[in-house]
Amino acid sequence: MPTRKQIAVILSGCGVYDGAEIHEAVFTMWAIEKAGAAYQLFAPDKAQAQVVNHLSGETSDESRNVLTESARIARGHITPLHLLNPTLFDAVILPGGYGVAKNLCSFAFDGDQCSIDEDVKKAILGFHKHHKPIGALCISPVLIAAILGKGQLTIGNDAETANAIKAFGATHTNTSHAETVVDKENKIVSSPCYMLDASITQVAAGAENTVNAVMKLIE
Amino acid sequence: MPTRKQIAVILSGCGVYDGAEIHEAVFTMWAIEKAGAAYQLFAPDKAQAQVVNHLSGETSDESRNVLTESARIARGHITPLHLLNPTLFDAVILPGGYGVAKNLCSFAFDGDQCSIDEDVKKAILGFHKHHKPIGALCISPVLIAAILGKGQLTIGNDAETANAIKAFGATHTNTSHAETVVDKENKIVSSPCYMLDASITQVAAGAENTVNAVMKLIE
Repeated sequence: MPTRKQIAVILSGCGVYDGAEIHEAVFTMWAIEKAGAAYQLFAPDKAQAQVVNHLSGETSDESRNVLTESARIARGHITPLHLLNPTLFDAVILPGGYGVAKNLCSFAFDGDQCSIDEDVKKAILGFHKHHKPIGALCISPVLIAAILGKGQLTIGNDAETANAIKAFGATHTNTSHAETVVDKENKIVSSPCYMLDASITQVAAGAENTVNAVMKLIE
Repeated sequence: MPTRKQIAVILSGCGVYDGAEIHEAVFTMWAIEKAGAAYQLFAPDKAQAQVVNHLSGETSDESRNVLTESARIARGHITPLHLLNPTLFDAVILPGGYGVAKNLCSFAFDGDQCSIDEDVKKAILGFHKHHKPIGALCISPVLIAAILGKGQLTIGNDAETANAIKAFGATHTNTSHAETVVDKENKIVSSPCYMLDASITQVAAGAENTVNAVMKLIE
């Protein structure tokens, strides 16, 4: 019986406006298990850039930790991101949410002048160096473009975000619900999910299609 | 074209140890849409009984609001529970998580002497009075038993919790992963989900089977 493929999943908090998009994270985990693989969850052990009240949309003066909040989605089973060793995994997948653009990099505040979390940068460069697939949902392709400076990617059809991807040196293809863009050369799979005005079943399909495409790229 | 059935979903926070179990909540929403129905999310607008650090498992001295935290799962689209009018919905479903036993009632602290949130009590009694189905995942059947004092229910195979259900005047049937108990007389469907040591695909199947059984009970 073959060993199960091991997929690292990087979270960025818990909640679309200041952390990982919860539905995208849950469907990623579900799709990995459904594909016969196993997942391990990671998140940076640092303060969130912001805490947003998800009812009012307003920023609060609370302080929350990205790893501790991500642990809510993970039911406690999560590892600090600096311990992620790409040689021990077959692929990495990043769900979206503003946490990617606020906690994993500062794109939400600084656009194409954004800074990037050192641990996520090291992790993504490690997977890329070892020719291991990278999956990116929703806004995450922006982070991948910022780190790699190349790649064929999609975030759906938002012109401003697509232009940012191009400014980082990558290319952008418009997509609709549940569609993926597969960059075979760089082994990157992306899908828009909630970067479009999507329903929950469309997001589940986007996550599942991304996971299945990532599985096919594993050597 | 027939009107889509409308299902109310009651959340109790965001995170298994002090709120709604996130995976169960997401798969409930997904299964409702997959079944061709629509959902509206509700949660009580009050302080959580506790805030638990999901990484360490320790109770923190923070204060969080059940509705505001539930809004993270809901992506902001959620309504205070006291506004839930059972006559406007075809059924109600409750995902699990300690939030059910800490915020919707005090079962986690007080066992069969627990108090019950007045708004959730009113809502469940309203659906029952109008012969509308009630779906209950994980620990939620305990709350249903405490409110109705009857019913054929399951929380899996935990003897202590099953005894509590019996103490409230309901009956209990042991079940395994993704199985449901359907009480046709009282129109209650229950499934153990994470009350068993379940994997995420088993929990998705449990939520989907529950939603589909609830749909069949709608008159």
